[in-house]
Amino acid sequence: MSQIVYILNGPNLNLLGSREPEVYGRTTLNDIESSCTEAAEKHGFLVDFRQSNEEGTLVDWIQEAGQKASGLIVNAAGYTHTSVAIMDALLASPLPIIEVHLSNIYKREEFRHHSYISRAAQGVVCGFGALGYVLALDAMASLLKSER
Amino acid sequence: MSQIVYILNGPNLNLLGSREPEVYGRTTLNDIESSCTEAAEKHGFLVDFRQSNEEGTLVDWIQEAGQKASGLIVNAAGYTHTSVAIMDALLASPLPIIEVHLSNIYKREEFRHHSYISRAAQGVVCGFGALGYVLALDAMASLLKSER
Amino acid sequence: MSQIVYILNGPNLNLLGSREPEVYGRTTLNDIESSCTEAAEKHGFLVDFRQSNEEGTLVDWIQEAGQKASGLIVNAAGYTHTSVAIMDALLASPLPIIEVHLSNIYKREEFRHHSYISRAAQGVVCGFGALGYVLALDAMASLLKSER
Amino acid sequence: MSQIVYILNGPNLNLLGSREPEVYGRTTLNDIESSCTEAAEKHGFLVDFRQSNEEGTLVDWIQEAGQKASGLIVNAAGYTHTSVAIMDALLASPLPIIEVHLSNIYKREEFRHHSYISRAAQGVVCGFGALGYVLALDAMASLLKSER
Amino acid sequence: MSQIVYILNGPNLNLLGSREPEVYGRTTLNDIESSCTEAAEKHGFLVDFRQSNEEGTLVDWIQEAGQKASGLIVNAAGYTHTSVAIMDALLASPLPIIEVHLSNIYKREEFRHHSYISRAAQGVVCGFGALGYVLALDAMASLLKSER
Amino acid sequence: MSQIVYILNGPNLNLLGSREPEVYGRTTLNDIESSCTEAAEKHGFLVDFRQSNEEGTLVDWIQEAGQKASGLIVNAAGYTHTSVAIMDALLASPLPIIEVHLSNIYKREEFRHHSYISRAAQGVVCGFGALGYVLALDAMASLLKSER
Amino acid sequence: MSQIVYILNGPNLNLLGSREPEVYGRTTLNDIESSCTEAAEKHGFLVDFRQSNEEGTLVDWIQEAGQKASGLIVNAAGYTHTSVAIMDALLASPLPIIEVHLSNIYKREEFRHHSYISRAAQGVVCGFGALGYVLALDAMASLLKSER
Amino acid sequence: MSQIVYILNGPNLNLLGSREPEVYGRTTLNDIESSCTEAAEKHGFLVDFRQSNEEGTLVDWIQEAGQKASGLIVNAAGYTHTSVAIMDALLASPLPIIEVHLSNIYKREEFRHHSYISRAAQGVVCGFGALGYVLALDAMASLLKSER
Amino acid sequence: MSQIVYILNGPNLNLLGSREPEVYGRTTLNDIESSCTEAAEKHGFLVDFRQSNEEGTLVDWIQEAGQKASGLIVNAAGYTHTSVAIMDALLASPLPIIEVHLSNIYKREEFRHHSYISRAAQGVVCGFGALGYVLALDAMASLLKSER
Amino acid sequence: MSQIVYILNGPNLNLLGSREPEVYGRTTLNDIESSCTEAAEKHGFLVDFRQSNEEGTLVDWIQEAGQKASGLIVNAAGYTHTSVAIMDALLASPLPIIEVHLSNIYKREEFRHHSYISRAAQGVVCGFGALGYVLALDAMASLLKSER
Amino acid sequence: MSQIVYILNGPNLNLLGSREPEVYGRTTLNDIESSCTEAAEKHGFLVDFRQSNEEGTLVDWIQEAGQKASGLIVNAAGYTHTSVAIMDALLASPLPIIEVHLSNIYKREEFRHHSYISRAAQGVVCGFGALGYVLALDAMASLLKSER
Amino acid sequence: MSQIVYILNGPNLNLLGSREPEVYGRTTLNDIESSCTEAAEKHGFLVDFRQSNEEGTLVDWIQEAGQKASGLIVNAAGYTHTSVAIMDALLASPLPIIEVHLSNIYKREEFRHHSYISRAAQGVVCGFGALGYVLALDAMASLLKSER
Repeated sequence: MSQIVYILNGPNLNLLGSREPEVYGRTTLNDIESSCTEAAEKHGFLVDFRQSNEEGTLVDWIQEAGQKASGLIVNAAGYTHTSVAIMDALLASPLPIIEVHLSNIYKREEFRHHSYISRAAQGVVCGFGALGYVLALDAMASLLKSER
Repeated sequence: MSQIVYILNGPNLNLLGSREPEVYGRTTLNDIESSCTEAAEKHGFLVDFRQSNEEGTLVDWIQEAGQKASGLIVNAAGYTHTSVAIMDALLASPLPIIEVHLSNIYKREEFRHHSYISRAAQGVVCGFGALGYVLALDAMASLLKSER
Repeated sequence: MSQIVYILNGPNLNLLGSREPEVYGRTTLNDIESSCTEAAEKHGFLVDFRQSNEEGTLVDWIQEAGQKASGLIVNAAGYTHTSVAIMDALLASPLPIIEVHLSNIYKREEFRHHSYISRAAQGVVCGFGALGYVLALDAMASLLKSER
Repeated sequence: MSQIVYILNGPNLNLLGSREPEVYGRTTLNDIESSCTEAAEKHGFLVDFRQSNEEGTLVDWIQEAGQKASGLIVNAAGYTHTSVAIMDALLASPLPIIEVHLSNIYKREEFRHHSYISRAAQGVVCGFGALGYVLALDAMASLLKSER
Repeated sequence: MSQIVYILNGPNLNLLGSREPEVYGRTTLNDIESSCTEAAEKHGFLVDFRQSNEEGTLVDWIQEAGQKASGLIVNAAGYTHTSVAIMDALLASPLPIIEVHLSNIYKREEFRHHSYISRAAQGVVCGFGALGYVLALDAMASLLKSER
Repeated sequence: MSQIVYILNGPNLNLLGSREPEVYGRTTLNDIESSCTEAAEKHGFLVDFRQSNEEGTLVDWIQEAGQKASGLIVNAAGYTHTSVAIMDALLASPLPIIEVHLSNIYKREEFRHHSYISRAAQGVVCGFGALGYVLALDAMASLLKSER
Repeated sequence: MSQIVYILNGPNLNLLGSREPEVYGRTTLNDIESSCTEAAEKHGFLVDFRQSNEEGTLVDWIQEAGQKASGLIVNAAGYTHTSVAIMDALLASPLPIIEVHLSNIYKREEFRHHSYISRAAQGVVCGFGALGYVLALDAMASLLKSER
Repeated sequence: MSQIVYILNGPNLNLLGSREPEVYGRTTLNDIESSCTEAAEKHGFLVDFRQSNEEGTLVDWIQEAGQKASGLIVNAAGYTHTSVAIMDALLASPLPIIEVHLSNIYKREEFRHHSYISRAAQGVVCGFGALGYVLALDAMASLLKSER
Repeated sequence: MSQIVYILNGPNLNLLGSREPEVYGRTTLNDIESSCTEAAEKHGFLVDFRQSNEEGTLVDWIQEAGQKASGLIVNAAGYTHTSVAIMDALLASPLPIIEVHLSNIYKREEFRHHSYISRAAQGVVCGFGALGYVLALDAMASLLKSER
Repeated sequence: MSQIVYILNGPNLNLLGSREPEVYGRTTLNDIESSCTEAAEKHGFLVDFRQSNEEGTLVDWIQEAGQKASGLIVNAAGYTHTSVAIMDALLASPLPIIEVHLSNIYKREEFRHHSYISRAAQGVVCGFGALGYVLALDAMASLLKSER
Repeated sequence: MSQIVYILNGPNLNLLGSREPEVYGRTTLNDIESSCTEAAEKHGFLVDFRQSNEEGTLVDWIQEAGQKASGLIVNAAGYTHTSVAIMDALLASPLPIIEVHLSNIYKREEFRHHSYISRAAQGVVCGFGALGYVLALDAMASLLKSER
Repeated sequence: MSQIVYILNGPNLNLLGSREPEVYGRTTLNDIESSCTEAAEKHGFLVDFRQSNEEGTLVDWIQEAGQKASGLIVNAAGYTHTSVAIMDALLASPLPIIEVHLSNIYKREEFRHHSYISRAAQGVVCGFGALGYVLALDAMASLLKSER
């Protein structure tokens, strides 16, 4: 059976592309999901791609991933900087974890430079927009291979 | 068709007036809603008045307001000081936004002096209790007029 | 005899509208005074509207207001962030006090986020330009009514 | 009718014991609930023992406890360090409140040393694992007795 | 032979109850000692209960406890926040250590939120007055049992 | 000819005693001046006692004192904590300088703990109300004697 | 029977005058004691003048003063900046308390600007050398008189 | 008609040279004015050279300069580090602005390292004594030329 | 002609693999260079792969890259956290820039969390060891494509 | 023989003018050198004008200047904010030292506000572009004259 | 008569070697004393080697050393980081002072990086265990020689 | 073959003794090298004594030492406080490392209290001038002996 990688997206990422496309570009979260599915296929695994605005729902999914998935890619958006709860869920997870951000958070406001997610992640990919998810999947493929 | 202004209330504001009225006064959130409805009527618009204890639900409603409303008044209560997620939702919103607080948060504990909401709001009204909502609606009427 | 509300304006506010109108708009401090007079009339009280660049003169006027006025509206401009002397004058005042700012100071430079005035004010209205003074007068009317 | 004590557990505590028992021990949250039920019985009151990963749900339950319970024991886990909303709910509660942590949070990472919960709690018990809940119930029994 | 638990009390705790009883209650340190003796008896061990205003004497006793006792309960009072020397003595001790405070130090002045003792203690009980000592003894009984 | 000691009082001290005497006591600044005159007489010197709300006027007077007086006693009130200009005037003064405060500023809000005046003063007397001025004059008498 | 005022001196003050008199002057602690005795006599009370290098001994004496004295003058020297234990003893004392320092501590190294003693003292006299003790006694006489 | 450059001097600069010439040198503010007049002449413009100890007067003059002058040179002395009001006046000014200090403020006390003036000035010249004013006039000549 | 991507490595990276291979793995910087060459080939460009322990040499190479290369990948190692000079060189570069780190620097010591490089980089890849360079090259290929 | 003034330029200043002239202007470092040579000639001394990207080379040159030159003008660029080594070399130098910056560093990012160079320099000239070097040479001429 | 060097040891150092020798090694404080005696003999002076857990006793001994000894070696252990009283005693001492620590305190917890002792010591030797005392004695011999 | 100890000296140490001998003494770096050679001889090993102003060269030499030497003594001078690159080189080194400073850096400016070198060194010797190198060699001899 194929391995599954959970790709979890945090608050406001559902707005991507549908609003002010002249500013943020026309790539939607659906488009990103498609790129991920395609990239995962090349590596021979499935992706379960989700978005929630709820901190607690993200905690639930991270716990669920621990049961059902082989790897976890997380873009926690606004919760990146404030959620000890999500960090604790990640720390308790047996899975390899990769943190993704669309923008380079280290070039933005001071309060976005700190990430609780980074304390629990194997690695970080940020600043490459949608492409970052594909790079994270490539990295995940490599991590899963080396585990075996 | 009339313009709608969303008035969103954060955690614990549902307790207003029903508990220890000798301390906090007898004005309930329902009373505030009535004052708002009445005030909005004078300006010729409708209000959609809601309360939630959930950070994610408030994010959802702010996104929904972007679709359905012409203006947004927010009293994020405890999330004011901690929620980057709500701030991001507000920053992504095309609507004029006004921040309201019942008390003067700048006279209270140090950690209440910082507001993530203020970074995304046009203006702030605080310290006037229920009246603050009415003043915010007056200000919103003016903002909406000047936009036209 | 009518109640009087002192409206005190701090340094550089005399420049409003007369300089770079394409940037700051054409509303002058005189225009704001007119709006205030008109709004006060509706509530049945008078306004005494002044501006000074001097910290000490503002202290004097706050003390004078304690003798002659029923309420005090203050836009201390640059002294907002630095004047313990003005704060102490306000703390010693028996009047209800409302703080006004034309811009949303909480969206500006870090050093403008702290207000000594807020420690002494009943409430704060900021970010609404000239309209903020009118809202403050409405709030003052309500405060004065509830005192009676 | 017996008094009820609400025992509310925050994010990730549902994982206790079921994962990596060789590391965290085999005590599950169910086991803790049993110990609590048993201990409460000795003191002649009932416990309502719950867990949620949602910040807002915890706020809801704290409000509900105010209506239905005589005392409140809270292990807010990751929200301990970040939730002003939960703190506000506790501050608004008429019940005696006890804060519990399984580990000694003051020996862990710096960001876990600060607790918003402590500002609203009568007392704190931490570092004794499951036993801490029983000690908290003993303390609650004493608090409830002294109230009468 | 019975196990002994040292209960060490820091500066000013000798004043308990004898001064301003209408403020601090009438429980004296002697009363607390009696409660402890009684509670210890139930668990089958002895307590050696002492108080000193001297930092160095407390260090001496902690060292002595390492030779003669099976467990150590410490209320270091004012030295809690300033004494690296006491912390070092505790860190060097082979005994299980429990920190007790009469009041909830995390609700008091900022400088009381930091405890050097916590870095060396298994757990903390605070905010329950004299009862806290009894809870600490209960916890100690459990720790000693699990050691065997 | 008699030596003169300047006693300079900063913003809001003119309000002393005349407002809310049930709170602040009935001692006015005039009363303090009288006590000072009387005390100075015993030491055989004159006092020139002044008050201003203006930072710049205080700077002027400190400079003037350098020409005309033998000693300087300063209660800079709110400017104590913010005025580098007054500190610089004092640092440039050849006179012995004593800082006085009616209240113990080190027991009040954090921002009142820092005094620019202290960097230029020989000594500080605070917390003794009007009596502090008399003590400062006694100290000044001693400083002037030892200079001779 | 005459009232007694305790005058307590902290670490290293016993060295005064006997070492490097060309630097620190030739006034010894004995000389200061004599001045105090003389000054106290004028006010009709006795002084009990002591020095210790021990933090705990100073705590003991502050407690003892609560039993035997009518007022307390404290120069805690190096413990001024570090001793919560001494502060707690002072806070628990029913006596009027005056803090004295030989030098103006606010002109010295940064770490000497903070005083735990100030939180418990009625007033502070610093920077006047031995004279400061006499001024403190004068202030004490006034405080004791106003208490009666 | 000749262009005018305003040269504004802040508090205590009137003391230059007249006091302790063996320490601060014998150059007076009048001497500096003469050097400036002479230097300005070479560049073909006039200087209006003023000094005030009043923060508000400096604000007034900066505003006046905006009407009458072509350039502004400011040595705000003690207000450099504390005056948001002066900074705001400068920010509102259409003139090129140069900040001057007699001493190198970055070698002095920590609190003198921060300058509100720098946020509004084109450039800074400090540490060259009276010569700094002449260099600033040279720079101003160049700025005015490049504007044309 | 093929596009060139400069890959610049900072201090101590030359030690990779040759020392303590049981700890750091056996991958040498040469191995990483080979992987990069191979990966670049797939994207149709060349890599110029260098290492230096000198801050200034890295600045030189970044300037040189601006002349000769189409993209820049930088692992500045220890200089990441301290070099404003390298940051300035990167900010002045017209090339797309990607920051790489072998380890997840955000999980390491506090002083490694801050990167001057991030202020100038399009994106960051860290925590994936040698693989991170290949991912960075993939990202670079995409950036270069979108530029055309 | 003519006196020599060393003018040392730090990292990235070699890029001046040759890159993005529409942004940074067309003045190159060579142009600045020419202006300096010309200005020095007027004062009758020579300049030795150099640039390096290496921190250590700058240290070498500062030491060399101590042997061969009469004055030192330094624009340390990025090393201004980070190099204790360069500061130490300057502190050990017997020459008069002037710090120059092209831009007003106090208007830029926070980390550029601190200069280690300022601790060792007689004065600072910043914000006047290439002209700043000429002003520094004028100041140096004056310093050298006053030394004689 | 031989010169004497006092070697003073602070809290908990009496535990050395006697407890958990498999962890801390078997060197006791007695062993260190022997090494010191032997090393001192070579330099022709005597050592007076003491240990106390009391801050005040250490102050006493430092004062005593000023009378009886020629040099002072201090390992203040936990008081290193907290005792202004010991620092003041050392600052008042006419002797050369050397600070010793068994471990490298700069590699340990943050709060151990700061030493009040260092402000008063000629030099520091740390991280070499018992050998550090011998090195300190060698250094002391050299200091004493150069004094003669 | 004899063991070699590398002794590496950082920026500006080449100036020792040759400049202002009346201030810094006449000991040159050559003299220190001679003392080291002599001391090393007694312990039966050789020293390789070097100085560089270049951060990168020091990194190179530390790496080289790892290949050729048995121990490393480092006085990184100004790089002590700023160089993560040197610290990383030391952390990667298999040799015992001793940090030396001529002066007691903990008595100097605040920014010199922090040493990156200390994180990688076995021990520190500072404040003893040239003698410190000899003590470090003695310590190194002992470390090398205990390794065998």
